[in-house]
Amino acid sequence: MIKKGLLLAGLCLSFSSFSPLEEGMFPLSELHKVDLQKAGLKIPLNAIYNPDGTSLVQALVRVGGCTGSFVSNEGLIITNHHCAFGAVASASDPEHDYITEGFMAGERSKEIKTSIHARITESYEDISARVLEGLEVISDPSQRSMKLSENIALVQKQEEKAHPDLLIEVSEMLQGKSYTLFRYKELKDIRLVYVPPRSVGEFGGESDNWVWPRHTGDFSFMRAYVGKDGQPAEYAEDNIPYTPKKFLKINPNGVKENDFVFILGYPGRTYRNQPAQFLEYQYKYQLPFISQWFDYRIEQMEDLGREDKALAIAFASPIKRLANVTKNYKGKMQGLQRTSIIQDRQRDDEAMQAMVARDPKLKEQYGNLFPDIARIYNEKLATAQRDLWLGQVFSSSGLMFASGYVGSLQEAFKDVKKAEQDSFIRTQLSDKSGEILKNSSISNAELEKRILKKLLEYGAMLPETQRPASLQLFASAKDIKEAISEFVDNNYDKSLFSHTTKFKEMLTDKPGKLLKVKDPFMEIATDLWNHLRAFQQAETKRQDELSILIPKMIDLRQIYQKSTFLPDANSTLRFTYGYIRGYSPADAEVHQPFTHVKGVLQKAATGGDYFLEDYIQELLATADPMSIVCFLYNLDTTGGNSGSPIMDAEGNLVGVNFDRAYTATINDFAWNEEYSRSIGVDIRYVLLIVKQLGKGEHLLKEMGV
Amino acid sequence: MIKKGLLLAGLCLSFSSFSPLEEGMFPLSELHKVDLQKAGLKIPLNAIYNPDGTSLVQALVRVGGCTGSFVSNEGLIITNHHCAFGAVASASDPEHDYITEGFMAGERSKEIKTSIHARITESYEDISARVLEGLEVISDPSQRSMKLSENIALVQKQEEKAHPDLLIEVSEMLQGKSYTLFRYKELKDIRLVYVPPRSVGEFGGESDNWVWPRHTGDFSFMRAYVGKDGQPAEYAEDNIPYTPKKFLKINPNGVKENDFVFILGYPGRTYRNQPAQFLEYQYKYQLPFISQWFDYRIEQMEDLGREDKALAIAFASPIKRLANVTKNYKGKMQGLQRTSIIQDRQRDDEAMQAMVARDPKLKEQYGNLFPDIARIYNEKLATAQRDLWLGQVFSSSGLMFASGYVGSLQEAFKDVKKAEQDSFIRTQLSDKSGEILKNSSISNAELEKRILKKLLEYGAMLPETQRPASLQLFASAKDIKEAISEFVDNNYDKSLFSHTTKFKEMLTDKPGKLLKVKDPFMEIATDLWNHLRAFQQAETKRQDELSILIPKMIDLRQIYQKSTFLPDANSTLRFTYGYIRGYSPADAEVHQPFTHVKGVLQKAATGGDYFLEDYIQELLATADPMSIVCFLYNLDTTGGNSGSPIMDAEGNLVGVNFDRAYTATINDFAWNEEYSRSIGVDIRYVLLIVKQLGKGEHLLKEMGV
Repeated sequence: MIKKGLLLAGLCLSFSSFSPLEEGMFPLSELHKVDLQKAGLKIPLNAIYNPDGTSLVQALVRVGGCTGSFVSNEGLIITNHHCAFGAVASASDPEHDYITEGFMAGERSKEIKTSIHARITESYEDISARVLEGLEVISDPSQRSMKLSENIALVQKQEEKAHPDLLIEVSEMLQGKSYTLFRYKELKDIRLVYVPPRSVGEFGGESDNWVWPRHTGDFSFMRAYVGKDGQPAEYAEDNIPYTPKKFLKINPNGVKENDFVFILGYPGRTYRNQPAQFLEYQYKYQLPFISQWFDYRIEQMEDLGREDKALAIAFASPIKRLANVTKNYKGKMQGLQRTSIIQDRQRDDEAMQAMVARDPKLKEQYGNLFPDIARIYNEKLATAQRDLWLGQVFSSSGLMFASGYVGSLQEAFKDVKKAEQDSFIRTQLSDKSGEILKNSSISNAELEKRILKKLLEYGAMLPETQRPASLQLFASAKDIKEAISEFVDNNYDKSLFSHTTKFKEMLTDKPGKLLKVKDPFMEIATDLWNHLRAFQQAETKRQDELSILIPKMIDLRQIYQKSTFLPDANSTLRFTYGYIRGYSPADAEVHQPFTHVKGVLQKAATGGDYFLEDYIQELLATADPMSIVCFLYNLDTTGGNSGSPIMDAEGNLVGVNFDRAYTATINDFAWNEEYSRSIGVDIRYVLLIVKQLGKGEHLLKEMGV
Repeated sequence: MIKKGLLLAGLCLSFSSFSPLEEGMFPLSELHKVDLQKAGLKIPLNAIYNPDGTSLVQALVRVGGCTGSFVSNEGLIITNHHCAFGAVASASDPEHDYITEGFMAGERSKEIKTSIHARITESYEDISARVLEGLEVISDPSQRSMKLSENIALVQKQEEKAHPDLLIEVSEMLQGKSYTLFRYKELKDIRLVYVPPRSVGEFGGESDNWVWPRHTGDFSFMRAYVGKDGQPAEYAEDNIPYTPKKFLKINPNGVKENDFVFILGYPGRTYRNQPAQFLEYQYKYQLPFISQWFDYRIEQMEDLGREDKALAIAFASPIKRLANVTKNYKGKMQGLQRTSIIQDRQRDDEAMQAMVARDPKLKEQYGNLFPDIARIYNEKLATAQRDLWLGQVFSSSGLMFASGYVGSLQEAFKDVKKAEQDSFIRTQLSDKSGEILKNSSISNAELEKRILKKLLEYGAMLPETQRPASLQLFASAKDIKEAISEFVDNNYDKSLFSHTTKFKEMLTDKPGKLLKVKDPFMEIATDLWNHLRAFQQAETKRQDELSILIPKMIDLRQIYQKSTFLPDANSTLRFTYGYIRGYSPADAEVHQPFTHVKGVLQKAATGGDYFLEDYIQELLATADPMSIVCFLYNLDTTGGNSGSPIMDAEGNLVGVNFDRAYTATINDFAWNEEYSRSIGVDIRYVLLIVKQLGKGEHLLKEMGV
């Protein structure tokens, strides 16, 4: 009855934001709190989750960072196309372009070996007592933090010894409060069964990433194999298909608008139990700074790629990676602006403070809590602008990384005793050469110079109190931009670190010489390196302090919110439910919850990211133009839910989750009925493509369709 | 009862495309064909149009290329913001930035003089007989065409003599068939009364051009003044406000979804009575070629502007002009692709041919009609690719224009007798120097070179049979692009025509010398110039032939379509009606027919084209977020309808028309219930802005609100 309770609570506490209807990434242990029958579920709860018998949960499987589910009693797994992409790429060669053409193993023996491993949850238990043992007597935050890590390592070791055949993982459900031990069976022989052509599985590309209406066939099929004894085993030709304890039945008729659906999956990370200041930090600093900086980097790469096709190809992948983040971040900023999430969190924090102030017992225990949190965040916000920049300097510029790393080693080397010098050179340079070279690689000199200039400009224009001393000279120049541009242009070629081959040679052949190198960028880079280190130390201290304060705040939140409290997502198995539902992304615009084959063809006519081979267009043109392709639902998902099965009220498979709408990027901070919508490929499109394009009648038969 | 008749016709003739419900830009003379009462009109037809008394038509006024309407008995006119923009720009100076800040004349004496003239339709009559007199005996197309022009000029002259106080215009209603004489009163003293700030009146800029949902306050107020005698007069301080025969009453409550509305206005040009081949030519050649070429030019300007802010500013206006066309053309291509407009026209043409074949009498008269049209279009299509390119060469490149113009003069000069040489130089060079310099101006050398290269590449890559001889050398190069690039780079600076000042000096001081100049681009440019001239001659011949054939086809179409036939728009006064209605622009997307103040604020938060000053945002934030801003209707409009009053069933003003949705760009070819939607600013937003932002309580009072 939680939902009704929530509504009533909403009426009584008009300042509370906790009155959504379909919110929640429920840990299975919390499922009893929800009246799922009333919400629309037509099977008993223990058909979904039953610690003492078989249930749908046992059809779930983790495939890499994704979720998948068994759809036959012979180990057939359905997940996303993008979850299989790496494996398809590895399986392809110049003669077999499975990425472009797709792949269908007509028979078992043709299924292709991959390096993917899959995990099935065998069992789990609450081990909070074991993890928190002895912590209450430690008051120093960093010592406490250390002890916690030790305890977890100990449990891990004990469990691994007790269950050598299983994979052991300790998950923090509530920071400093609640820990769960998961035991997974790991299947090591996973093979490709069917992947549609990239033009179907990635249809819409970057243009449609985080976008609804969507027309992407983002699904693939794999099969899990085990040794002849039925136990997990490495690949062997004569391995046999794995028989799952449970597999999902297909509902080939799909669902319709407002139908009840639910998802089981492994959502990655959310930040819903953080104080309001966390959201403010995100909204005012992190999201705008990172998205602007990534935008700048993307623009430079696009600009250089326009005139040089080879560069354009080389930059395609880094651009895609950065664009995925900026689009997500901009969506979050828009969401935080349009919704009252931040204001609601502030009101909740204030209400909790008022609750504490009213109650002497709470006051004794929590009286300093919010002032302490405020103090820590005030400290963090004071230099947030500079620290975010520092955090990007060495990951954005290979030259800065190399000069900063070597420069700081030169400083440290002064204090190294003669006898230890060789060992210092080995451990700090030779042993780390791979990592050093990776971080200091420069893909294009012109790009590197532009990024260097922009980074230095940003630093030189910081408020004087935050500005690193080494940038003072630029800051006092008449024209800061010009001074920096001149400095970079004059010195770039002179720097050892701009010549990767030369640098690599020295690092490999005479690493000791690096400790004597003088380089034009080294003074600045070392200064910034030291600033970054100082920031990181301060930040670790703050996080250690917060790791004691946040659990307290969560205690308080549980008192305040009562039964509606749920822990943040942490890559463990969660349940979420809701309804097939459209939404309004903007004034006067309505997005309906189903897309159709006619939309695929309309988009395909525009080419570009919507490229679709003629033979596929012709094939789709023979289908009913109103055949369903993708669908939309107000469920509570986040990254990690990729590939999660979407099930109807009877627990039958009706689609595969693969993305969220642009406005649902805010799910990381809060679920919102107006904006939180997730996107799945409809099982009807899966069946259409498998049958018509993949000629996979046999797979349909195997799935009982 | 035309609408019902149409429906029935649609049922009987399943091959006919003429079954829309709200189509039609009706000339007033055709209004009796429609049962407007049944459609929803609540006032008698003669309240709208009454040749013998006052009617709404008399509230209409043409303001420049726009439509406006009187909204008070003291000459107050409402039209679009973009129709007043030029006048506002002229009225502004560094101290008075009315463009940015807007302008409100608190009292009559502060209203600002403009150079705008306004026209009111005084009377009109059918003069087809006078215009077509003596034509039937002329069979040669070009002589016929000449005689037609002579007749029109004669009528014009006679009428101007008879009505020296009026403006006379002869409009072709149906090519070669029907001509109407319009007599306009011209008001010459039009003053600015209120314009909102540009951020309101142009809100959304290029991003929202041709876009729904829209949030633009595209309206302005002017006032017409006349001499003390009530007659049109040039500006004089003591002129008095003009008293219109009729003015529109405001309905401050606006309309709601599905309400009946109608528009009176001056739509510019449509192509609905052209044969199917005309549409094919547009779809396959004109629209893709021009939009791609303009896109290329835009990309180059954007690219150069990225690194140079001054260039970016200089290019802003040409980019906007080209972008307006490409967006329109792309919308048309999408529309022709998604609808069956071309196929319907083909079927209609075929049905008419079949009708002719069945009827011996029709056969005698029209037996050759369609074969003749086909022959002409086949000829046109055969070299369409080349001819479209030729048409762009001299308008895209100042250097090509100058070298082509001068080169062709040099050729012609060879045949000029000594005695006539001076006169030749004067008439061809000195007298035309302004125009020559305008067409040969080069805004930026780098841009000019890029455009030159692309133009030459295109020509060199034409099929051999169409390729001009002067490009043969490039065409046979190993690397065409490289050869052209080298040629342009090596010769650009050497060309006199790349140095505008030098060229101008010579043209002004020693024009005769130009006839002896040798220039590296002249051979190519002259060759292309001659090709273009040959094409233009052939095209004129084709158009002359079509000017006889199309009227015949229209005759036939009138027989075929019966009463549903309507002439194309031709900038004369038209009536169109329909309903407030949303639509689906794409699969799973629905656009609702009203936008709201909350949408203005959401867009404003993103900046850029949605920039809105803080004080305006703050003011709007105090209004009801659901206050209506713009609205959408399925009426049949096109360019020229800008500023047209939108009236409700009672004939009261409920908004001002200013744009069409992207999908409605196809209106030029056909109206379509699924896609044809026009956009107006709602009177409620007009009143909100005038009152709250403009502090124009007095204007509201004048309009009786």
